[in-house]
Amino acid sequence: MPDKAQSIRIAYIGGGSRYWASMLMSDLAACPHLTGELILHDIDREAAEHNVKVGQAVFDHPDAATRFEVIAEPDLEKALQGATFVVSSIEPGPIDARYADLEIPLQHGIYQSVGDTTGPGGILRSMRAVPTHLQFSEAIAAHCPDAWVINYTNPMTLCTRALGTAAPALKVLGCCHEVFGTQSRLGKLVQEWFGLDQRPARHDVKLDIAGVNHFTVATAASWDGHDLMPRLREMIEQPGFFESKAADAQRRKDEQQYFGSAGLILYDILRNLDVLGAAGDRHLAEFLPWYLTDEQTLHRWGVTLTPYQWRKSNAEQPRVDPAQIAGQPLKPSGEEGLQILLALLGIEPLDSNVNMVNRGQMPGYPEDAVVETYAQFRRDAVRPLVAGPLPPLIDSHMRRIVTCHEVLLQACIDRDLDQAFSVMLMDPLVTLPVDDARAMFDAMVEHNRPWLEGWS
Amino acid sequence: MPDKAQSIRIAYIGGGSRYWASMLMSDLAACPHLTGELILHDIDREAAEHNVKVGQAVFDHPDAATRFEVIAEPDLEKALQGATFVVSSIEPGPIDARYADLEIPLQHGIYQSVGDTTGPGGILRSMRAVPTHLQFSEAIAAHCPDAWVINYTNPMTLCTRALGTAAPALKVLGCCHEVFGTQSRLGKLVQEWFGLDQRPARHDVKLDIAGVNHFTVATAASWDGHDLMPRLREMIEQPGFFESKAADAQRRKDEQQYFGSAGLILYDILRNLDVLGAAGDRHLAEFLPWYLTDEQTLHRWGVTLTPYQWRKSNAEQPRVDPAQIAGQPLKPSGEEGLQILLALLGIEPLDSNVNMVNRGQMPGYPEDAVVETYAQFRRDAVRPLVAGPLPPLIDSHMRRIVTCHEVLLQACIDRDLDQAFSVMLMDPLVTLPVDDARAMFDAMVEHNRPWLEGWS
Amino acid sequence: MPDKAQSIRIAYIGGGSRYWASMLMSDLAACPHLTGELILHDIDREAAEHNVKVGQAVFDHPDAATRFEVIAEPDLEKALQGATFVVSSIEPGPIDARYADLEIPLQHGIYQSVGDTTGPGGILRSMRAVPTHLQFSEAIAAHCPDAWVINYTNPMTLCTRALGTAAPALKVLGCCHEVFGTQSRLGKLVQEWFGLDQRPARHDVKLDIAGVNHFTVATAASWDGHDLMPRLREMIEQPGFFESKAADAQRRKDEQQYFGSAGLILYDILRNLDVLGAAGDRHLAEFLPWYLTDEQTLHRWGVTLTPYQWRKSNAEQPRVDPAQIAGQPLKPSGEEGLQILLALLGIEPLDSNVNMVNRGQMPGYPEDAVVETYAQFRRDAVRPLVAGPLPPLIDSHMRRIVTCHEVLLQACIDRDLDQAFSVMLMDPLVTLPVDDARAMFDAMVEHNRPWLEGWS
Amino acid sequence: MPDKAQSIRIAYIGGGSRYWASMLMSDLAACPHLTGELILHDIDREAAEHNVKVGQAVFDHPDAATRFEVIAEPDLEKALQGATFVVSSIEPGPIDARYADLEIPLQHGIYQSVGDTTGPGGILRSMRAVPTHLQFSEAIAAHCPDAWVINYTNPMTLCTRALGTAAPALKVLGCCHEVFGTQSRLGKLVQEWFGLDQRPARHDVKLDIAGVNHFTVATAASWDGHDLMPRLREMIEQPGFFESKAADAQRRKDEQQYFGSAGLILYDILRNLDVLGAAGDRHLAEFLPWYLTDEQTLHRWGVTLTPYQWRKSNAEQPRVDPAQIAGQPLKPSGEEGLQILLALLGIEPLDSNVNMVNRGQMPGYPEDAVVETYAQFRRDAVRPLVAGPLPPLIDSHMRRIVTCHEVLLQACIDRDLDQAFSVMLMDPLVTLPVDDARAMFDAMVEHNRPWLEGWS
Repeated sequence: MPDKAQSIRIAYIGGGSRYWASMLMSDLAACPHLTGELILHDIDREAAEHNVKVGQAVFDHPDAATRFEVIAEPDLEKALQGATFVVSSIEPGPIDARYADLEIPLQHGIYQSVGDTTGPGGILRSMRAVPTHLQFSEAIAAHCPDAWVINYTNPMTLCTRALGTAAPALKVLGCCHEVFGTQSRLGKLVQEWFGLDQRPARHDVKLDIAGVNHFTVATAASWDGHDLMPRLREMIEQPGFFESKAADAQRRKDEQQYFGSAGLILYDILRNLDVLGAAGDRHLAEFLPWYLTDEQTLHRWGVTLTPYQWRKSNAEQPRVDPAQIAGQPLKPSGEEGLQILLALLGIEPLDSNVNMVNRGQMPGYPEDAVVETYAQFRRDAVRPLVAGPLPPLIDSHMRRIVTCHEVLLQACIDRDLDQAFSVMLMDPLVTLPVDDARAMFDAMVEHNRPWLEGWS
Repeated sequence: MPDKAQSIRIAYIGGGSRYWASMLMSDLAACPHLTGELILHDIDREAAEHNVKVGQAVFDHPDAATRFEVIAEPDLEKALQGATFVVSSIEPGPIDARYADLEIPLQHGIYQSVGDTTGPGGILRSMRAVPTHLQFSEAIAAHCPDAWVINYTNPMTLCTRALGTAAPALKVLGCCHEVFGTQSRLGKLVQEWFGLDQRPARHDVKLDIAGVNHFTVATAASWDGHDLMPRLREMIEQPGFFESKAADAQRRKDEQQYFGSAGLILYDILRNLDVLGAAGDRHLAEFLPWYLTDEQTLHRWGVTLTPYQWRKSNAEQPRVDPAQIAGQPLKPSGEEGLQILLALLGIEPLDSNVNMVNRGQMPGYPEDAVVETYAQFRRDAVRPLVAGPLPPLIDSHMRRIVTCHEVLLQACIDRDLDQAFSVMLMDPLVTLPVDDARAMFDAMVEHNRPWLEGWS
Repeated sequence: MPDKAQSIRIAYIGGGSRYWASMLMSDLAACPHLTGELILHDIDREAAEHNVKVGQAVFDHPDAATRFEVIAEPDLEKALQGATFVVSSIEPGPIDARYADLEIPLQHGIYQSVGDTTGPGGILRSMRAVPTHLQFSEAIAAHCPDAWVINYTNPMTLCTRALGTAAPALKVLGCCHEVFGTQSRLGKLVQEWFGLDQRPARHDVKLDIAGVNHFTVATAASWDGHDLMPRLREMIEQPGFFESKAADAQRRKDEQQYFGSAGLILYDILRNLDVLGAAGDRHLAEFLPWYLTDEQTLHRWGVTLTPYQWRKSNAEQPRVDPAQIAGQPLKPSGEEGLQILLALLGIEPLDSNVNMVNRGQMPGYPEDAVVETYAQFRRDAVRPLVAGPLPPLIDSHMRRIVTCHEVLLQACIDRDLDQAFSVMLMDPLVTLPVDDARAMFDAMVEHNRPWLEGWS
Repeated sequence: MPDKAQSIRIAYIGGGSRYWASMLMSDLAACPHLTGELILHDIDREAAEHNVKVGQAVFDHPDAATRFEVIAEPDLEKALQGATFVVSSIEPGPIDARYADLEIPLQHGIYQSVGDTTGPGGILRSMRAVPTHLQFSEAIAAHCPDAWVINYTNPMTLCTRALGTAAPALKVLGCCHEVFGTQSRLGKLVQEWFGLDQRPARHDVKLDIAGVNHFTVATAASWDGHDLMPRLREMIEQPGFFESKAADAQRRKDEQQYFGSAGLILYDILRNLDVLGAAGDRHLAEFLPWYLTDEQTLHRWGVTLTPYQWRKSNAEQPRVDPAQIAGQPLKPSGEEGLQILLALLGIEPLDSNVNMVNRGQMPGYPEDAVVETYAQFRRDAVRPLVAGPLPPLIDSHMRRIVTCHEVLLQACIDRDLDQAFSVMLMDPLVTLPVDDARAMFDAMVEHNRPWLEGWS
């Protein structure tokens, strides 16, 4: 343990997590500035215990620059007691619950490329996740009201929103790496356009971000002071630029490489709505009604569906074997959680995008809604920059989406099925007749009954 | 001509109109309070001349209580000179132009029950109509800036909006009878519920109206101080209330009675969006994506499509024969144009719904947008009442629609096809893949080229 | 008791009132449409009992067209039970409490022409009155939540605001006759300008009203469709129009005719802030810092101070002697309370100005603030018309005043003296150094201690 | 000239300036990263020529790390041609014009501690300065529309606002050091509270700034992550904290040290309006009506007036002698202009307060108004952070001030004396009777006639 490392106490809700927990531990281990305790809380007690062993292996690793004491704590309230940071990353319900998110809508002709944020799947997932997060919020307000709470669970907007409900002073952030991908994508173009030897660092591509998680857009893009927007506009006007990428999509499907994309949707949003998409295509496609009308159309944009079966088998992969950790180098996760800790502790300032309650960063949007924009992370403070303005069409669509989030939150607080159904009717992906939509909704709820306590 | 009748000068743009002109003349003839000149202007000179003859027959009719001098004036500027009122009711383009409004979308699987307000048809019609109305506005500002301008042309919102652009002080109103139908519909229920001998007068059913033309909703409904909302909510919760009306729709289709409906959509909006629809079902259906997914679904709500062929043949019916007018009693039109004139002249106050520029009646909506709400009509003044608030889901959808109107207006001012296409993409009825949507749009524009001067 | 009169139950809080109660009873007696019970509640039990006798004399009067049963009820909750209307008109504290409102500020060089609405006196009076009205609100919410509540007590804005706090659905109105005086004042000009034989009825002078009670302004003024604004602007530009009216003021002072004025302040607001003052000069003067700098300046505008001693002796005049009522004709009060009852009962519609919670009638103003604008009174409904917009300078000043009201309400809820002092510092009439202002405030509070329970 | 220094072209409007020009040149000379041209434009040609010589001496100085070519250019348009930066720092009118700003109000009993920002003096100065700045704006839009424009002239808000009027894309910033003083003042306390060996650097005291220039407030204050607000609140509650500083003020007056203060007003704002003043006391005092009621009251706060005579003699001091420059070390100015250049060039990022057009940083304030808040300065971009919210009383007062600025701008555009007078009536320092206020205004205008071309 290095001299002068600051000592912190992190409560990790969902600490039995398959990947995120070990990623966070690796990042912590590499950082000489921090030490302290990491409390792993999970309803899957065994998984948390397993991660304690993973943790021990990580902090014992020869590359480790510091130590954390890693403890499994099955009692939520005890886990939170005295925490200076709370990290939350859970799966709302078992993987089988996702059947209703994905497969039942598919039976009604609704295609979802992700299904965990918006669309029927995102809404049902919210209905499972939000009540739990309301409880987390109460517990945090009671046991560590001054802690910074960092959420990774999807639906990001609803979970982050719910975590902040118990008291207005709670300090809740939601973190997502989708914008990083867009920075990298543009970095490739910058390398080409400016004849650089190597791709510029992600952070050097500056984006002015506005929107909500997974439906973020960039109102400005620059590198080293060069405005990239005119170049992007010129690029997409080249003949053939928007040609079908169906062959790519088919290849990805065949190779089970579901997460890739050509970025074509990102640019189509620029073409048709006058602002650059800033999340990945798989996510953007779910917020507009015209990319997911059928599988073939999605393929045309170079994107492929992620089958439920694959998700299920993926979730059932064996866990990291602690015994194997020592033999491999510790790898950085690429996530920003550690940088955020360092910034909030005053060690290293950070400017990045973040999901948090609107206090003016999206002018004209509801005050309590969770939005994603750029912010300064400083010692015990996150100060958002003013975002936007958005072009009017996408702005009015975005506001409707934000309103749907707010109404869905209320439906989850009231456990009101009819209200939740109304939100589903208004979802961009749901263009079914009312009767079909209701039948689909009822079937989804029926399937998820075990995880929807108190809903009526 | 009665003593003490006020003398006014009405300029009628579209004075060659097949029905509206003769209806207005009949209403005027029956009213002893007014006299003066009625100037019929039309690009179809012959039609205007024909209506002069109709007018002479009307004012010569034994039932006539007053006289107007009816004059055809082919020069717009001369027609407007000195007008105290302008009535505008035109058909934007020949009836053949409507082929592209209705039939081309149908070829792409888009069903429109009316197609003159919103949807692809309404948008294309706006593209034909708005540039013309911008010219009317300039001419009115130049030749009769103090006149009250009453618009009847659809798309009501866009045409009314365009008529007011030339100068901020222009006094433009848009009038529509859709809400009257809802008052009558509720009147029937009132008669039943309260055991009345006869149906109460339309005006005695009080509705608090908010929204935009053809997508109005009622946030309150009462008769004689009795709140009707709890009764309506109870009524729609009865088992079977929302059963399919497909048989009715089929019958209407077979009998070519395209305009009727059961009001089921009106009530479905109450069920799902918590506010009563206030326009007719045929119109409401076009503003939400779930009623017009296919013909069968529309029939399920008891509504049937109006075929283009029928519209075409209807538009080609022979005109009113002036010679036959004397032989029949003069009938009131059921429209409110005359009452509005009387109210603005200070003769008889009126409270009614109206389309006009938002100056606060829809709080939080853009200031210049045209909205439809309740207002007081008094001598030379129309004072809107505060409307709403709307429940959040429909409110956010309504705002998106209003934004689309504002962007479409700008596209029409700039003659910008890409901008107009973006509005079409955002339309609730358009859930096509982008490529199909563009192909449809291009085909519609191609077909309408003769009436889209200057668009690029 | 006439046939078909509607039976109502009015609970009168402050029913021992010296003038208002007998005025209301006279108005009720003259109206054949109503009958029922009038419950007089007052903490001065004797005064209420006295008014019962007055009431009996009034309803026994030969001119009476109906009867009400008049009952004194010392228990507030019993008085409210089952009320269909609540009228509230109290004096907050004994007349001696007004010493601190008026005389202590005067010792610090602060002149107040009325001192019951704004300024140090209005603030202290609010501090006495609001806690009481919060209790009334709780009692109304518990015992007659559907009743219409009509407030006459000053400070009108704060008392009306407080009466509505217990539940969002309470139906609270505040009524004030100040605008009537402006209508009459303009009526005189109309008679002159249009050569009429007699002064037009008050109601025929139409004013578009915006603002808060006693600081209302008219954004439009018309009679019979004639816009009066250009004439008023021309009038005030005449040389000499704004000459000193000090001699008039001195005469009024000598004759103890404190309530008259020349209307010069009303017009000075038009000259300097571009909108016509609509309340009386005595009230308007208190909302701007430049009319009440000293007594001489107030006199220059033709207005004189109302001395505390005169108020005190006036409050101690003998009460109406029931025995003398029969011998004199019943006179209408000139107030609008009865018309409001008739309109809310659906008997006779009314359009008039009213103080009520902002639900959009003052666009951009806080939603819960009480503002004064025009409204339609109909059966069980009051629908405000959209007011304004105000010219920017007075608008921003008005918003600051509204904010002060909202903060003062909160200070009264929290019984927070420091917060109340901050509001006093921000008052337009208070231009004292901070130390003096605090000394004045402390002295006022000290004097009023008996009526400021719980403040600290 | 160092390798790799970036070459820029700065057009300096007011380049004959007595102090600012030489300060800027010294700062530039010390910075190895920049080189290029500095164009001095001034209506006082001789002064500009003189500063060319000063500049040569500065860049010849042995401490100089770079060179700029310094050129006097009497033609504004040529001076601006090709500029990458424009610096503007002028005196609007000769020093004699300030007589009317300061002495005439004093004759009417209005005390102004500065008189160049707000109050009668600030308003008259705006009337002289804004028309000139509107012309600068036109010239910039024509000759260097992409340049960053940095304004130092007072009234900061109005001049910065005017500089941006000619085109919406102009990049105009206003810079002021008042907040720096508050950072230093708090730094002293931090040193004491935390027992530090030396006072922390100004930049390490973090303030969240909101407001308008010279009436800024801090909604948060921290050092090294320690919240300073609770300590400040505790400090000001100590008995005796607010005791009179009249003796200090008298001493400052006697010693002609007019610019010092105890910071007592800063803290009194915290006490009474719940937010820390962030500009110096001399400026804050002018925005609230209770600190400048008379000289004695101002002294009580430890502040003294700056006499006009001293300003006049100060303005007539001999200029810097170029011959003496070589003999003294080059001193940094303490201003931030150079840091801003470096940040906008992408050389060194900066976070600081800045005056610029509101695009959401002050939520709810008018969009075009110029406000002062915190911002990120990056390569070719300034991104404001979201400020506030302010406590309601000061917020509503601030909005009124912002409205006055907007109306005054319009009055200056229209050269409308009556409108400007209305703004003066609404100024917090003006509590005169209307007639006196008008007499004062007329006398001020009369005196300034030579510099008020076109006003009527």
